[in-house]
Amino acid sequence: MRGIAYLLGAVVALAGVVASIAAVSGQADGEAAPIFGVKIPPGYRDWRLISVAHEEGNLNDLRAILGNDVAIKASREGKLPYPDGTIIARLAWSYDPLEESEKAFGRPQTFVAGPPKNGVQFMVKDSRKYASTSGWGFAQFNDGKPADEAVQKACFPCHSTVKARDFVFNRYSP
Amino acid sequence: MRGIAYLLGAVVALAGVVASIAAVSGQADGEAAPIFGVKIPPGYRDWRLISVAHEEGNLNDLRAILGNDVAIKASREGKLPYPDGTIIARLAWSYDPLEESEKAFGRPQTFVAGPPKNGVQFMVKDSRKYASTSGWGFAQFNDGKPADEAVQKACFPCHSTVKARDFVFNRYSP
Repeated sequence: MRGIAYLLGAVVALAGVVASIAAVSGQADGEAAPIFGVKIPPGYRDWRLISVAHEEGNLNDLRAILGNDVAIKASREGKLPYPDGTIIARLAWSYDPLEESEKAFGRPQTFVAGPPKNGVQFMVKDSRKYASTSGWGFAQFNDGKPADEAVQKACFPCHSTVKARDFVFNRYSP
Repeated sequence: MRGIAYLLGAVVALAGVVASIAAVSGQADGEAAPIFGVKIPPGYRDWRLISVAHEEGNLNDLRAILGNDVAIKASREGKLPYPDGTIIARLAWSYDPLEESEKAFGRPQTFVAGPPKNGVQFMVKDSRKYASTSGWGFAQFNDGKPADEAVQKACFPCHSTVKARDFVFNRYSP
């Protein structure tokens, strides 16, 4: 029994080491999105918060902008352009009135995040690899699967409206 | 010179160790808020995201809910009540239309976080210390200073509208 326990312990420890190496090297699993070849970065949901936003109209969502360590450092310093290695994640959820709050106020007052909506998007800075799009690679994943080519192609033109801020819509929120 | 460099290195290393100990022990600096005696937890802006929200009306803000490791684990598992050691932080910023988006759409479309607004709030779970308020201590800080007693007293009654969810408004957003 002690031998099995030891073996199990060793396997768990090894799994931890392998997971750490994958996390540190930024090794991504899963399918690469078309156009820029971006994969879902492992552990992105644990990244720190850059800012939050709300989209009206057809998008109608609440969103959070997270960044890897390079992105957080750069966005806190507010220096542009973002350095190579920056990855910014945009998560979004449905824009739902909070039932308890609506009851208490007699009208919608608080809007909270419902189920995931409008996919998860990533911006990856690699000034050599993505030279033709000002150093940024873009990707959208819906339910963990890359969105089709038309969706990926729409990223860069839209982000070009904030070219003056190195194509990033959100600023760091202290 | 080499001696000074060594000494400087040792001081930097020691400062790192002290900072780590403070972070791990959750030792808080600054003034304690009235009623519950909660202090601003060090490093809370680096905590992971639980969810996001928007308040209409007089509050009119965009907000992010962050959690320490205990809070993140508990909110991901969705088990209630939250365990002792849970700390949840509520940050908020003004609800500002994004200029570039408004120009592109000809109407407000994207709302982003402006300057900090409505203070920063914390919920701290300690079932013995805060037994009379169902295990939760509450605090609000405005510009890093504790808000007055009347503000602190308003927390628990308002959060009681979500007593069924252990007094926490927001659920974890995947």
